[in-house]
Amino acid sequence: MSGIDFSTEAAAALARVAERVPLIHHITNIVVTNDVANVTLAFGASPVMAYAPEEAAEMAALAGALALNIGTLSRAEIEAMLLAGRAAAARGVPIVLDPVGAGATAFRTESALRLLSELPITVLRGNRGEIGALVGSGQMCGVDAVGGEDPRAVAGAAAARFGVAVAVTGAIDIVVGGGQTLAVHNGHPLLGRITGSGCMATAAIGIFLAAGGDPVTQAALALGTYGLAAERAAAGDPGPGTFRARLIDEVAALGQRGVAEVKINDE
Amino acid sequence: MSGIDFSTEAAAALARVAERVPLIHHITNIVVTNDVANVTLAFGASPVMAYAPEEAAEMAALAGALALNIGTLSRAEIEAMLLAGRAAAARGVPIVLDPVGAGATAFRTESALRLLSELPITVLRGNRGEIGALVGSGQMCGVDAVGGEDPRAVAGAAAARFGVAVAVTGAIDIVVGGGQTLAVHNGHPLLGRITGSGCMATAAIGIFLAAGGDPVTQAALALGTYGLAAERAAAGDPGPGTFRARLIDEVAALGQRGVAEVKINDE
Amino acid sequence: MSGIDFSTEAAAALARVAERVPLIHHITNIVVTNDVANVTLAFGASPVMAYAPEEAAEMAALAGALALNIGTLSRAEIEAMLLAGRAAAARGVPIVLDPVGAGATAFRTESALRLLSELPITVLRGNRGEIGALVGSGQMCGVDAVGGEDPRAVAGAAAARFGVAVAVTGAIDIVVGGGQTLAVHNGHPLLGRITGSGCMATAAIGIFLAAGGDPVTQAALALGTYGLAAERAAAGDPGPGTFRARLIDEVAALGQRGVAEVKINDE
Repeated sequence: MSGIDFSTEAAAALARVAERVPLIHHITNIVVTNDVANVTLAFGASPVMAYAPEEAAEMAALAGALALNIGTLSRAEIEAMLLAGRAAAARGVPIVLDPVGAGATAFRTESALRLLSELPITVLRGNRGEIGALVGSGQMCGVDAVGGEDPRAVAGAAAARFGVAVAVTGAIDIVVGGGQTLAVHNGHPLLGRITGSGCMATAAIGIFLAAGGDPVTQAALALGTYGLAAERAAAGDPGPGTFRARLIDEVAALGQRGVAEVKINDE
Repeated sequence: MSGIDFSTEAAAALARVAERVPLIHHITNIVVTNDVANVTLAFGASPVMAYAPEEAAEMAALAGALALNIGTLSRAEIEAMLLAGRAAAARGVPIVLDPVGAGATAFRTESALRLLSELPITVLRGNRGEIGALVGSGQMCGVDAVGGEDPRAVAGAAAARFGVAVAVTGAIDIVVGGGQTLAVHNGHPLLGRITGSGCMATAAIGIFLAAGGDPVTQAALALGTYGLAAERAAAGDPGPGTFRARLIDEVAALGQRGVAEVKINDE
Repeated sequence: MSGIDFSTEAAAALARVAERVPLIHHITNIVVTNDVANVTLAFGASPVMAYAPEEAAEMAALAGALALNIGTLSRAEIEAMLLAGRAAAARGVPIVLDPVGAGATAFRTESALRLLSELPITVLRGNRGEIGALVGSGQMCGVDAVGGEDPRAVAGAAAARFGVAVAVTGAIDIVVGGGQTLAVHNGHPLLGRITGSGCMATAAIGIFLAAGGDPVTQAALALGTYGLAAERAAAGDPGPGTFRARLIDEVAALGQRGVAEVKINDE
């Protein structure tokens, strides 16, 4: 047990976001761009999307965090991500990477591995299949070798292999890094019924990283508060279209309604 | 009269989608990407957007259906569509094509005709103007020659010319192919007040094709269930912003509320 | 005092849009594309997005207005904007430009200035920071020199420098051009909590320009009616996700609910 009161920490992080209004530079996929911008605003941060190689580095250097998402990747976008990532790194701007669809095609797996290799990623967030595909892609380390179905084993293997904090999201979210493992018990199955729910979780991590603090803790706090907003948005069992609008409402209301129900434990 | 009970067939198709959760590979326009992904999830299928030439073929080969939409076409996207389409064809994956804006510019008309010429399209879906423009583009066959305003004549001419099943959507949707003509009487005028309603109809057709069965019947079932969800979402006469969210809610509720009110007849 | 009854003028402009259903050609950013299309439909106009250099000119020549937005600019998109803009100019089609993020990166500032220099822009709309950055970018004319924080001074300086009508939006929107200054007092702080609210305001200006009339007046009417819809959508203090859907509902209801509360004055 760490003895940390995660609800208090989450409230403090949200207050820092509200005070600083950090600029979050997203290079994300075209399916979820609008949702990612709106969830960033709802958390009290300021989103900017800048994809052109001509400006990616300049924008990243201004940002409080850089969020990279390969959901609809192109060669030009990888280039922009590398330029932005290097500029972020030079300024100490934290970087979160979402390897959407890693494992589904070689292009996605290889692109995610290239970004992990060339940039000092702060937090890697994906589902079990995506992170497992990245870990399993090496010659020495198949998915079976890292525990298969267990998100703790997958997150741990990825953290060890890539030297980054890793968040594997699912029914329970697991965040691993620096010898620490945190489990986040917030969330709702309706998140799986809308597109972009994972990408918004990644955005949340970027925002909490911009608020400062230890990456593993900040990632867990981001997932806990986002998951708590999802629980509230799911009250009354709405359809997914209504849930999607209410999720943004509830993220925006976190400061007012409080985050006492954040459920995170140190394992 | 065919004697088919279309409501029963629609329920069976939805059940097959729920059981198989087919992957639907969309290469669609940037206006509607999010809506198309969410409606695919709402129908119980799994959407993936993959546009890069580097991965389009690999993704299409994994899919249960490929849905192509030229609403914000670029040269690179045509290339990706051709690569994906050839990979789909090689695996017997059905392909639905939405020629958004055909007739408005030469680039759109020519691109749609090229896709029809080079790929074994399973179903072509558009409005009367778009399909009419494709039929009328040949030297032998002007719009007047194929019946002008009558969607049955336009659909029939396109089916004959391109050798594909054709769905012409409007107040009444007409699906023609293989000597059969089905008329779908579901839908609501609010669909015309939101962007992406046609593109979501195309997505629905892709999903029903992935569930297996005759293309003409599957296309009609897709349009009937989608139109029924629209009727339910329009209850109480909401504004278009609210209708858009409820439409996704009602598509997701089709399995639970049933599809007895699907109105399709064989002409 | 001009003696114009702006509410009556706004109602007349909305009626002309409803009658003509003008085609609005948008080349806009990928964050807000869907919102911009839906607000265009809600105002009673017809949106089309066409970004490919192969068709941009052809589409712009068909349009009632061309709306350019540099929010997620690329080199290819600038090229498409120039082609579309020249075609629009040749046909007398009005052009509205939204220099999203001007001042944040050199690429955005330079691209906006290039569009202003090479195209006969009808109305330039941005917030105080963006328009101030464009005015301040010259060697002779820093932001301090044009009044710093005062939107009237910024708008006036931009109108003088670029020879276009300029709308600077904020708590009060200021529209300047042709020796006239109009102030628009409609709007709501929730607009600042969703992405795309400025881009939708730009779309509204494009739609009102397509309805005909003096650019300064039309821009003010567009901002007044859009702001009025926002006030109505904000009733009951919804969260931003719900507000976003209701904003579209209320724009669509403007014709029915009327626009008597439009508050515009000549300064």
